[in-house]
Amino acid sequence: MRFVKGHGTENDFVILPDPDGVLDLTPYAVARLCDRRAGIGADGVLRVVRTKAAGPGVESDADAEWFMDYRNADGSLAEMCGNGLRVFARYLVDAGLAAPGEWDVATRAGLRRVTLGASGDVTVEMGPARLLGPGEASLAGTVFQGERVSVGNPHLACRVDAPVTALDLSRAPGFDPAVFPDGVNVEFFRFVGERHVEMRVYERGSGETRSCGTGTVAVAATAAAAAGTIGGAETSDWTVDVPGGRVSVALDGQAARLTGPAVLVAEGEAWPGWL
Amino acid sequence: MRFVKGHGTENDFVILPDPDGVLDLTPYAVARLCDRRAGIGADGVLRVVRTKAAGPGVESDADAEWFMDYRNADGSLAEMCGNGLRVFARYLVDAGLAAPGEWDVATRAGLRRVTLGASGDVTVEMGPARLLGPGEASLAGTVFQGERVSVGNPHLACRVDAPVTALDLSRAPGFDPAVFPDGVNVEFFRFVGERHVEMRVYERGSGETRSCGTGTVAVAATAAAAAGTIGGAETSDWTVDVPGGRVSVALDGQAARLTGPAVLVAEGEAWPGWL
Repeated sequence: MRFVKGHGTENDFVILPDPDGVLDLTPYAVARLCDRRAGIGADGVLRVVRTKAAGPGVESDADAEWFMDYRNADGSLAEMCGNGLRVFARYLVDAGLAAPGEWDVATRAGLRRVTLGASGDVTVEMGPARLLGPGEASLAGTVFQGERVSVGNPHLACRVDAPVTALDLSRAPGFDPAVFPDGVNVEFFRFVGERHVEMRVYERGSGETRSCGTGTVAVAATAAAAAGTIGGAETSDWTVDVPGGRVSVALDGQAARLTGPAVLVAEGEAWPGWL
Repeated sequence: MRFVKGHGTENDFVILPDPDGVLDLTPYAVARLCDRRAGIGADGVLRVVRTKAAGPGVESDADAEWFMDYRNADGSLAEMCGNGLRVFARYLVDAGLAAPGEWDVATRAGLRRVTLGASGDVTVEMGPARLLGPGEASLAGTVFQGERVSVGNPHLACRVDAPVTALDLSRAPGFDPAVFPDGVNVEFFRFVGERHVEMRVYERGSGETRSCGTGTVAVAATAAAAAGTIGGAETSDWTVDVPGGRVSVALDGQAARLTGPAVLVAEGEAWPGWL
């Protein structure tokens, strides 16, 4: 089994090239690959398969040549991942499987447009961020007020005044399960400049992570609303610093586009007899 | 740069084959390789170099053909690592660079004898464990009594009665710095059968780890003393369960031999332009 390892703002992936869809990728195999000490180690697996070989339910190659088969580290199926999609697109171009430019990738959440050059950052379409009104979460006994945001998944974006490095995110934030029946990803952000914020995020089910694509969109939309720049026809570009690096988020009231690094680290194959 | 990834009871390593000693391995490169999200990810690097190419200070190839150049994940030099030495020896045999059998490996702590077959577990010589008398450490407000042990590095092995899974090792144990001026690795162990213990370990500078070779020796020696079987000419074989797997420790009063798994996971090379 051949693989490539890569990351987007330190959200990392094992990429499995499988253009013809011949790989029998069991949840067990995914979990072993993603094991950080007994395996290769990653937040998830990105299987790279042609849409025409991806089986039923995947939009055809008339719309998108490639399907991103994304799996969580525990082996379960996942719909979409903004950081993963950047890495997926960068792999296709670097491996010569797609040309630089603008094209759609098929995902379980539908087609997603990517834009990238021969090297450097990648832009991915993230869909809209919907602001849903105030909410709150607690951290080590302190209550934080925030904005509830849906980016396909639930977020609470809390503005703080002190540097986000000062927060203790070693324990899960508390929240009202009646308000967040599916749990919630909680972001803490601070303005550090004009249309520029820093943030940290506690992802439901994962703990603090180095980066969260939808979380950066939720924060940019909340910050833009606070700054009075959302909702118009004019675009609003935000710089968002996460622990794993820096991304930019372009908002136009209808959708968000996330631009950030995608780094390929190594390629290899499983040691004979290992998997 | 070619690499192999492997682990011993989930203490994992990036192995760098460099038989002729041509690799300029900077601390920066080691830290990048070991970065679990932005790099390949490991607890440390094992550079595989012939002793005759390893430079001054390494015992000659008359005694040992291979030198284990072990580096910590932060890039600093390290002397020895029992789990790493098993993985190092298994790599040499699997790659056809050494024959199965019994031979010495040069390390910064001197020659260490390894014993292994064409597949399976590897036995490594660990040197003696010296019992130094009682000591104590605290965990979340509770004081634990234990035995101070030197296995080249300082340990405190604390016997507990409840399953070790019940302990909270998310924070560092407290100890008296006058007693442990160089810090201390703290083990908690419980008897689960005849000459059979389970343990968890908090390593100084690292936090809780999946396994610690010298820690298993410290625990076996302490358990053997408690059971009245150490100090004689008779050997005493102990089974030690760690979070990352199972090892066995053979004590003879003078030295310890650690036997456990060594698993090679994958081989590969850095993506063009990455490192």
